[in-house]
Amino acid sequence: MDRYDIAIIGTGPAGLSAAITAKARNKNIILFGSASLSEKIRKAHTVRNYLGLPEISGTQMQKAFLDHISSMGIAVTEEKVTLVFPMGDYFGIQTSSDRMYEASTVILAVGMSAGKTYPGEEEFLGRGVSYCATCDAALYKGKKTAVIGSSPDEEAEADFMAEYASEVYYFPMYKDEVKVKDGIRVVREKPLSISGDMKARKLVTDGNEYELDGIFILRDSISPGQLLPGLEMDGNHVKVLRDMSVNVEGCFAAGDITGLPYQYAKSVGEGNVAALSAAAYLDAKRRRADG
Amino acid sequence: MDRYDIAIIGTGPAGLSAAITAKARNKNIILFGSASLSEKIRKAHTVRNYLGLPEISGTQMQKAFLDHISSMGIAVTEEKVTLVFPMGDYFGIQTSSDRMYEASTVILAVGMSAGKTYPGEEEFLGRGVSYCATCDAALYKGKKTAVIGSSPDEEAEADFMAEYASEVYYFPMYKDEVKVKDGIRVVREKPLSISGDMKARKLVTDGNEYELDGIFILRDSISPGQLLPGLEMDGNHVKVLRDMSVNVEGCFAAGDITGLPYQYAKSVGEGNVAALSAAAYLDAKRRRADG
Repeated sequence: MDRYDIAIIGTGPAGLSAAITAKARNKNIILFGSASLSEKIRKAHTVRNYLGLPEISGTQMQKAFLDHISSMGIAVTEEKVTLVFPMGDYFGIQTSSDRMYEASTVILAVGMSAGKTYPGEEEFLGRGVSYCATCDAALYKGKKTAVIGSSPDEEAEADFMAEYASEVYYFPMYKDEVKVKDGIRVVREKPLSISGDMKARKLVTDGNEYELDGIFILRDSISPGQLLPGLEMDGNHVKVLRDMSVNVEGCFAAGDITGLPYQYAKSVGEGNVAALSAAAYLDAKRRRADG
Repeated sequence: MDRYDIAIIGTGPAGLSAAITAKARNKNIILFGSASLSEKIRKAHTVRNYLGLPEISGTQMQKAFLDHISSMGIAVTEEKVTLVFPMGDYFGIQTSSDRMYEASTVILAVGMSAGKTYPGEEEFLGRGVSYCATCDAALYKGKKTAVIGSSPDEEAEADFMAEYASEVYYFPMYKDEVKVKDGIRVVREKPLSISGDMKARKLVTDGNEYELDGIFILRDSISPGQLLPGLEMDGNHVKVLRDMSVNVEGCFAAGDITGLPYQYAKSVGEGNVAALSAAAYLDAKRRRADG
């Protein structure tokens, strides 16, 4: 398996800035995210305070950023990263298409997930609660499952689930029309909590209770502590030093994930610093290995 | 005297980013620096890693940044700040044209001065060593002085000095042709140290020794600790927290002054954060005053 120098997770301003900086330093990178960039960029209203691009709209900024990365030959790997695990000398990176990648360093730039976790979600994670239909659907053959989708992108996951499960309830957390396979029951209710015993058994909503074997929660972003177990947090944010390093050696973070203010310029600056810190870390490691 | 909400010192990427952010927040600002922006911007080679502006030259970046600030109606006050002093509720700001300004908060974005101080410089500062000819020339009527100029901009200061002093030695720290008044002795030697007793008496160079009454050292930027006495440093850099605050209440710092890496994106990000922190500080103070 190829081992990348730097895996960058997230295609918001922080991830993109990290990518161009790492690339300019001739590092071998992989950038995970959406090829049309983060929702946050596209949906921005006019931004007035990103120096050099006055009064720019979200779509103009999306174009400027895409032009920049493509001019440097940077491609986006459109897979959602579900887990990062430190292997000592490198990181293993698991994606929702159940592929594995390896990288010597990782930059977390996944933004802030607006939503909080449901009561019971963390307790039953791995015991009936999952963030990855592609990874775990086969475990629910002939079972009853629910899929909570944060965006229409998740409908394909519900469809995939229906290939295994006997019953699939789909809870869209958005207002758009839902287009899923026949047989999937679309439920317009708000999930409130997850309960169970040794494993998750029940999803409680504002309108009902559902006895289930598996509950799949598919958000745009996974909370950082779930993405990289052991990551030290400061409230909802990842704790970083001024060089953007986190408490896990070889791992760095940048952008909204590190705290307020949620601003393009701050994210771009932090992505830049994180990439240079990762590059310096790699170079120091190489020198030690050579010496 | 008008009291500004935020005084921003420096027209590099950090200062400009702070200015547009503060302006976007409707703060009443004053921006000190060069109207043609910092040398660092103009003299940049191609920059590849400032997101949104791929493969941009220094002059293109200068134009993009100038267009941005002028589109927001931000003017540059072309005076060199020589001293910032905390007055409790606000800051007094002294400039080389001997004017005084007041601001409720200050953002230091003066960059890093490449040069170190001369041995004896800090010891004799205020006792025969000065950073401001305009402020102190009158004290040297009929005396012997030296002016050490880091750029041709300082030649006017030497000329001004010659209106008072009986003898002026001018030490250009650059290779350009020097155009100063007749009577000023231009010396192409490298200053090495300053010595004296109760006050500075002598400038030692690599070619000679000069018995003097006053030594004026005119650099593009003054070291942060001299600009704002009491400022806590971390080596050559100003010590900042993640919100860009320094150890003096109401004061913030951004850009190269806060440490490595010296990068446009990092400076722009920090300027943005410093401005928002200053704005939040002002708003909190106003709420306390109202409550």
